[in-house]
Amino acid sequence: MSDDSVVRPRPEAAVALRPASGGRIQGGFWGARQRVNREVTIPLGGRRIRESGAFANLELAARGAGGEHRGKVFADSDVYKWLEAVAWERGRGDDESLAGPYAEAAKLVAGAQRADGYLHTHTQLTGRERYSDLASSHELYCAGHLMQAAVAAGRATGDRTLLDVATRFADHLVKDLPPDALDGHPEIETALAELYRETGTRAYLDLATRMVTTRGHERLPLKGHHGPGIRQDRVPLRQATTVEGHAVRAVYLAAGAADVAAETADADLLAALGRQWRDMVATKTYLTGGLGSVWYGEQFGGPHELAPETAYCETCAAIGSVQWSWRMLLATGEPAYADLMERTLHNAVLPGISLDGDRFFYVNALRVRAGANPDDRRAAARGRQDWYGTACCPPNVMRLLSSLDHYVATQDGDGVQLHLYAGGTVRAGQVLLEVETDYPWDGRVEIVVRETPVHPWTLSARIPSWADPAATDAEPGTYHRVRRAWRPGDRLALDLGVRPRLTAAVPRLDVARGQVAVERGPLVYCLEQTDHPGIVVDDLCLAGPDLRDGPALSGLPTDVVPVTARGRAHAHREEDGGFPYRTAAAPREPEHMGPVDLTFIPYYAWANRGAGPMTIWTPMH
Amino acid sequence: MSDDSVVRPRPEAAVALRPASGGRIQGGFWGARQRVNREVTIPLGGRRIRESGAFANLELAARGAGGEHRGKVFADSDVYKWLEAVAWERGRGDDESLAGPYAEAAKLVAGAQRADGYLHTHTQLTGRERYSDLASSHELYCAGHLMQAAVAAGRATGDRTLLDVATRFADHLVKDLPPDALDGHPEIETALAELYRETGTRAYLDLATRMVTTRGHERLPLKGHHGPGIRQDRVPLRQATTVEGHAVRAVYLAAGAADVAAETADADLLAALGRQWRDMVATKTYLTGGLGSVWYGEQFGGPHELAPETAYCETCAAIGSVQWSWRMLLATGEPAYADLMERTLHNAVLPGISLDGDRFFYVNALRVRAGANPDDRRAAARGRQDWYGTACCPPNVMRLLSSLDHYVATQDGDGVQLHLYAGGTVRAGQVLLEVETDYPWDGRVEIVVRETPVHPWTLSARIPSWADPAATDAEPGTYHRVRRAWRPGDRLALDLGVRPRLTAAVPRLDVARGQVAVERGPLVYCLEQTDHPGIVVDDLCLAGPDLRDGPALSGLPTDVVPVTARGRAHAHREEDGGFPYRTAAAPREPEHMGPVDLTFIPYYAWANRGAGPMTIWTPMH
Repeated sequence: MSDDSVVRPRPEAAVALRPASGGRIQGGFWGARQRVNREVTIPLGGRRIRESGAFANLELAARGAGGEHRGKVFADSDVYKWLEAVAWERGRGDDESLAGPYAEAAKLVAGAQRADGYLHTHTQLTGRERYSDLASSHELYCAGHLMQAAVAAGRATGDRTLLDVATRFADHLVKDLPPDALDGHPEIETALAELYRETGTRAYLDLATRMVTTRGHERLPLKGHHGPGIRQDRVPLRQATTVEGHAVRAVYLAAGAADVAAETADADLLAALGRQWRDMVATKTYLTGGLGSVWYGEQFGGPHELAPETAYCETCAAIGSVQWSWRMLLATGEPAYADLMERTLHNAVLPGISLDGDRFFYVNALRVRAGANPDDRRAAARGRQDWYGTACCPPNVMRLLSSLDHYVATQDGDGVQLHLYAGGTVRAGQVLLEVETDYPWDGRVEIVVRETPVHPWTLSARIPSWADPAATDAEPGTYHRVRRAWRPGDRLALDLGVRPRLTAAVPRLDVARGQVAVERGPLVYCLEQTDHPGIVVDDLCLAGPDLRDGPALSGLPTDVVPVTARGRAHAHREEDGGFPYRTAAAPREPEHMGPVDLTFIPYYAWANRGAGPMTIWTPMH
Repeated sequence: MSDDSVVRPRPEAAVALRPASGGRIQGGFWGARQRVNREVTIPLGGRRIRESGAFANLELAARGAGGEHRGKVFADSDVYKWLEAVAWERGRGDDESLAGPYAEAAKLVAGAQRADGYLHTHTQLTGRERYSDLASSHELYCAGHLMQAAVAAGRATGDRTLLDVATRFADHLVKDLPPDALDGHPEIETALAELYRETGTRAYLDLATRMVTTRGHERLPLKGHHGPGIRQDRVPLRQATTVEGHAVRAVYLAAGAADVAAETADADLLAALGRQWRDMVATKTYLTGGLGSVWYGEQFGGPHELAPETAYCETCAAIGSVQWSWRMLLATGEPAYADLMERTLHNAVLPGISLDGDRFFYVNALRVRAGANPDDRRAAARGRQDWYGTACCPPNVMRLLSSLDHYVATQDGDGVQLHLYAGGTVRAGQVLLEVETDYPWDGRVEIVVRETPVHPWTLSARIPSWADPAATDAEPGTYHRVRRAWRPGDRLALDLGVRPRLTAAVPRLDVARGQVAVERGPLVYCLEQTDHPGIVVDDLCLAGPDLRDGPALSGLPTDVVPVTARGRAHAHREEDGGFPYRTAAAPREPEHMGPVDLTFIPYYAWANRGAGPMTIWTPMH
């Protein structure tokens, strides 16, 4: 059995499920996204990273004579994430044109490594003392991304160039890293665990375990106005009851901790992570799955602090959330983790990249107001950007899309579990499945058994928690499980009931008060200004609960299904130009203008026909 | 006639009204605040500023040999604002104990001035080149506060120590400031105009005019991630249609521009400022009058972007708003400016200082949620602070409270206008009025004519725009005008109808959707956790529109009138601990627990009985 999975627990790991990762996504919704990623985004990423000077930093570092470092202190990680994407893509076998660029970049990386295994071009070029400012330097963060790229290359292509670099670096860290050293920016924890999984070198896991379990004692120096929580250094993970601080750092750390918990069979740590994950979902997660509501520090807000307009929802945080949830799913087998993964992939990762694959969002607002200040550098109204000075997100999307095949299904002693629905194949031991579906546009999924052992086994298919219980074969939020002796050609047909629906929020989620969101299957929808000419999106409201699938829209791919509804617009009268607060015995009943046809599109597809106002939540009257 | 007013247009200035500033606030609501300011806050401020090293910087600068500068680059301005407060307070004549500290500090300031008139201890001590980094250095900002302190001292006490320093500095600027120099932080514009008013030196006004009218062409270098708008350098004031960027900078600049418009009879500039002010009020002002909804850059958000929880509402911005509005009121005579001043003074300035006068808010959130992250340095849940590293706000409150007497009334050729209601006297030429009132707790105001010329004149009393038209003698938002030949002992009695009322917002103000606020007279009220033990403030809602004055609360001054109402609490059920979004045909109707007695207190008085959750907006069901 091929096992090139993106997370690969050791045989002795305490996990409920193991990846079933020999299959491939082919065609359909995610296949199209992967094709754009391969044909447009990854080549473009290589060019942008070259332009940013990150390759030049490696060349300069290889000479060993110092020099001017270009870009951010973590510029190396852009190269590594891109290399990881290239490696997974090569493993998918679709395009050998990436072999040359991969080999060239891997050689640059290898050349820049110091004789003792150390590698961080900013430190090498500036001559700064190693590990002297780990709160900011990103030395171990970059090391982590190097290790992840190396593991990907090893698993996907068998190439050991980067694995040799990574293991030399890891050996150096085991030997020479100051005791108790922690990076301000977690990432190396999961990378060391994976490098252990790949190499069997227990010292790597021990180092990751030390980093995960000794964090949270306010040992990292404080920077700026923030407290220790911004770097997850306020409360040890084992005691924490929720997520806090910088959202990307939090979920990266949690993913690494989940790896450690699995490989060390640390049930207490796993339980703590589950508690934190559930609190995050209940109180700190946007409808899209996006994480981080506070620009100041790119961090989680307090419970239910989820304002749509000022959402940070960094694309990287969504990616880290998928990584964490996947590890929790493997550890526990609980479908809630797969539910959040699906929501996050469709509505928090995918909005970070344009349909054409060449423009990006770093921050993903859930609302853009009319008349946003043109000078306001927060404004999503400025639209997608070609690239970012801090370019963490684009190559992060690349590596996730290139490795998405590995997040589709799992296996255990009893059978095979499908968590995500994408057309293609699933390989798990002696089982080969073929999945035929137009999901998420259509809820029908046909699972065809192509190869099977003769003995009975259980085919489990996740019924998403949003599904209509009347339409599905099992309770939403569980698995539809069919145990039998399968024969080649056997089919399991699901209908997940993909129809437009309205979603509301609990009362504590005050920012959604009196409003609803439109969802359809796993997709969150939004109202965009471009579909409502002459009426400001801010003034639109639903006139009733009826939603219908609408005709394709020009400027969007033809497979995108809009949702239409009858709406109205709040009258914005002349006198509303005055002080906007008025004496009233009750909340002001808005006056309305005539009927308006509302057109909702999937949120992931917004800002592809120009920038402008947009909202996910819509008032009901 | 004494004329120690805080803004004193020249006789030839184009203004509709002139300050009537010989009177004094005595007793009552504002008298009590002034007493605390004099007895507690100003002495405490002197100590804190000494501890911060700002006095030491002046001593070190006087030696002329360089040395370590302590505190922020604008530390000098803390001293100047405190000196301004002391000067106004000395002018109020109530406490000669301030003479010594004033003289000592003024001497320190004079000693630190360079022979050519320059003074900025950070530049002097670090040896940095003068005016080489005006986008950040605050050199002219500090100069402006020096000039304002000097003018205050001259008008209030006749002392010329600081005036001599200020005029030497201003003469130096007129002669040596690089052409086209602008400070990243406006303040000197209004100060130069006032120094012109005090001295008659036209060159000061010309310099202020140049700074006001040439700004907005992207000449200041960009810093950080912000665009030119953050420093009001994107659009010339004459063309701007709204306020943008850093809120304090915006309103300080606008105040200076209003001074320039008045003194140069620039009707176009005045009209532009009126347009910007009206747009600010209609789209960028919190119910409290607070300004600035964006932490990132301490700036104005887009129109209607007024989330209560993440409100920045810097105390300094509210103070600058009062200064701007006062100048617009003088220029135009329009009561809307006085309306906003009153709202802002009671609900955006006053919350910045504790009832005891010894603790401060720099940022004024309109909502604090339960369970705020204890590590979140934004959280108003941390409560008021003893002082701030950036200590702009506390001495700013001090100088405003010390000079509040000057914002009460105006005069014109036709008579006297009362804009704010405070017990005490109003002196305008031959007219002496005595005002008797328990406002804002009670709406009855008695204006007694104590001295009057024999010829008829008009006594105008502002009817606040929130007043009930059925209860008042003139349309709310206008002046009640009584013209007659007044005799000593004549009285004008007003009833402004101070009763608790509900306030709602226009539909575009989405953050208040389905909610109401309680107001009573000019005061905005809030729900505080401490008055609702056992129930999370986040879950409270009003059960009906009936509001009543409540009994005094322990822990608050006995004059504070709470407002009570019947309420309920949204049920926060066990299952609400899950994903907070649910399929629904309409916004989820909240389930309620039993009835709850709601107690609202004035927002300015919140966080005086410990920190905790608080909200200004409350759902109606």
